[in-house]
Amino acid sequence: MTAVGIDAIEIWTGKLRLDLPNTFAPEKGEDPEKYTKGLGLASSSFPDVYEDIVTMGANAAKRLMDREGLAPDDIGRIDVATESAFDNSKPVSTYIAGCLEQVYDGDFHHANKGERKFACLSGTQSIDDAYNWIKAGRHRGRAALVIATDTALYERGDPGEATQGAGAVAMLITENPSIVELSTEQGYGSADETDFLKPNQQFPSVDGKRSVQVYLARMREALEDYESVAGDTHPDDFEYIPFHTPFPGMVRKAAVLGFRHMTRDTDVEDELADEIGMQPRESEYDTWDDYEEAIRAYMDDLKETEQYREWYATTIEPTLSISRNVGNWYTGSVHIARLSALRDALERGDELAGKRMLVGSYGSGAQAEIHAETIVDGWAEHVEAIDVDGQLDRRQDITYDEYELIHDVHNHAKEVDVEEFTAPESEFVFTGWGRMNERRYDYVE
Amino acid sequence: MTAVGIDAIEIWTGKLRLDLPNTFAPEKGEDPEKYTKGLGLASSSFPDVYEDIVTMGANAAKRLMDREGLAPDDIGRIDVATESAFDNSKPVSTYIAGCLEQVYDGDFHHANKGERKFACLSGTQSIDDAYNWIKAGRHRGRAALVIATDTALYERGDPGEATQGAGAVAMLITENPSIVELSTEQGYGSADETDFLKPNQQFPSVDGKRSVQVYLARMREALEDYESVAGDTHPDDFEYIPFHTPFPGMVRKAAVLGFRHMTRDTDVEDELADEIGMQPRESEYDTWDDYEEAIRAYMDDLKETEQYREWYATTIEPTLSISRNVGNWYTGSVHIARLSALRDALERGDELAGKRMLVGSYGSGAQAEIHAETIVDGWAEHVEAIDVDGQLDRRQDITYDEYELIHDVHNHAKEVDVEEFTAPESEFVFTGWGRMNERRYDYVE
Repeated sequence: MTAVGIDAIEIWTGKLRLDLPNTFAPEKGEDPEKYTKGLGLASSSFPDVYEDIVTMGANAAKRLMDREGLAPDDIGRIDVATESAFDNSKPVSTYIAGCLEQVYDGDFHHANKGERKFACLSGTQSIDDAYNWIKAGRHRGRAALVIATDTALYERGDPGEATQGAGAVAMLITENPSIVELSTEQGYGSADETDFLKPNQQFPSVDGKRSVQVYLARMREALEDYESVAGDTHPDDFEYIPFHTPFPGMVRKAAVLGFRHMTRDTDVEDELADEIGMQPRESEYDTWDDYEEAIRAYMDDLKETEQYREWYATTIEPTLSISRNVGNWYTGSVHIARLSALRDALERGDELAGKRMLVGSYGSGAQAEIHAETIVDGWAEHVEAIDVDGQLDRRQDITYDEYELIHDVHNHAKEVDVEEFTAPESEFVFTGWGRMNERRYDYVE
Repeated sequence: MTAVGIDAIEIWTGKLRLDLPNTFAPEKGEDPEKYTKGLGLASSSFPDVYEDIVTMGANAAKRLMDREGLAPDDIGRIDVATESAFDNSKPVSTYIAGCLEQVYDGDFHHANKGERKFACLSGTQSIDDAYNWIKAGRHRGRAALVIATDTALYERGDPGEATQGAGAVAMLITENPSIVELSTEQGYGSADETDFLKPNQQFPSVDGKRSVQVYLARMREALEDYESVAGDTHPDDFEYIPFHTPFPGMVRKAAVLGFRHMTRDTDVEDELADEIGMQPRESEYDTWDDYEEAIRAYMDDLKETEQYREWYATTIEPTLSISRNVGNWYTGSVHIARLSALRDALERGDELAGKRMLVGSYGSGAQAEIHAETIVDGWAEHVEAIDVDGQLDRRQDITYDEYELIHDVHNHAKEVDVEEFTAPESEFVFTGWGRMNERRYDYVE
């Protein structure tokens, strides 16, 4: 079977940076540790006045195409994943293709463009569609461009305001990829949930507590479904486990649940038995609630064990490094978690080729998807070429007052005239609205 | 290679009917023939007060599952195609799955749910994704459910008001299908166009003239792209050619263009030469405009020829029968064109198995997709089971005043309290909004 997977990755962060413990927390009268320790966040990215989901997506895609030496003819499919769309009919991928056609010879007229929506999950769903398209033999030797782009903004004063972010991840899906090969096996956990939604709203209605429960429940279902086709998992199987990361604190909860599940009936459970006992079994309890409570107590003990801490430090913690500094990128989130992991291995000089990751994607509403990825030769060179630190460092710090202005700029219900904070250079920018209310874009040299 | 295609089809029309020549035209002070002859429309479907894209989609899906004897476990994927979504994050497929779980034993927790948006095109894109998913070997023997559901409403007074409609098409995509097998070959014609869009709007901004030009230009590009992989097409190759049908008059324009393209350099062009000359060749003209004008003149003559009229009457006209009576169903439109064709063959007693259709899908913004379908044994029995006439006949006629009320009911910007026109029975209904602004649904026995 032909290997199909991710051949190249690029990111584009919103060009403004809000310091959460030092700028945001004091204005909110909050303890800075709520951010650094509780949520696990240092700062958020925001789009400048001339940025939006189209410019961030197009800029990430252009950077990827330039680095890989691609022309429009090399691309047979452009799918955009977003939950920040500003049009109920025309897909963001057409806007992005229109931007790219301004700067490249040739066009994307024979590429299939689309848009997928499922909260934060649809970036992974778009990768899966691209994988299937290649496996089905419909790609004519061409690659698929998948772009996950979002501005994750909340109503001012909403608890979610603490976890905002904005950025795009562009990924190239090909045969014989240079970064990771995707597994055919997938696991799904999915239910009709009212945890987070945007009914005719730009900003979400969120039930924070329910949202955490649903994330964990769907992720567990997806893992069970994945194991039903790929066989039982074991913590030693995977070098890294990138999860969807609305904020790093959420991943801490998912990780201990995943470790508990994966170690059940394994050598690890036996090794830990002296210290914390064996895992509770449902048959030992009269009610489901009693069983659940016992499981929670076991997990509280589990996360204090040396085995768990070591696994977490090497398998999970490294996936959070970008997220800590940019906040929630919604559809892009799990993809920056994967990139964080690969960058960690690069820094440590690990040879990853042939090793595997388990990837846990999630979208509210709600659905989790789990699949495995095998890292392939060439990954290090491709990951090294991505200028993540430079981009994050070049962001312009904003004050709280400036944050309030920029939130208004990107609020569709407001019309405000705010000066740009940074000067665009060699990038696509939003230039205003056209006569049919379409958003218009130019490339600035 | 395993055959993959459409195994079952169901439709659900909005339960109200607006007579266009007799009710709508007089109120607008228009000639009824604008509708019957110009646009080619007799009536439009509208959703009753308790109907929306979720109920219509869920009702079509339930009817399909009941007839095919399917349980939730048989379905591995539910994709909804719509440009009428009311949520920017949570996909309509989760609402529909939630409805279906109210009435079936079992659940869809391990099915991949999604939502695609690209104006009227995304129903076909969702079928393609399902095809690829099966071909990629990821379906575990399960089927995909694709639901195209829309309420095609325009601002009151907009020229598009004449072409409104509402309904859903549910399709089951499987291995060894019972209706049609899809071709691996696909052709795309796609460009960043501002012909029709809904920027932060429920109702579209439309440039009617441009929209027609773009439809024809993209369709031509898609046909050229299709021929580049599948070889030249000839009118005799295809029993029917279902097109996206915003209104039947649009298809008349597309058909003559397609016939002209397909007959170039064929026996048909030679046969017609005495009567209308050979087709203009670009090399014979100094400018592109002169060439285009000559092509237009040739097409004016072409459509008056006996050969063209006969081809149109047997290959195109039969695809329009449902559309004439329900208006534009957006994502469902091309799929009711296919169904109209199959019903025509059934009525005429034709044996279609082994014969082919060319299917031309389209979405504004803009993209056309063309692929071929081979009709397979069993088609007649499956098509016969679909109660189209009964559904259309059972619709409740509404007056112009009632039309105004129902338009307001489905206008997200208005809050009106209107009595339902029909009594729901054995169907899903919208029951109101929940505490997080979610829409809520029940099954009425």
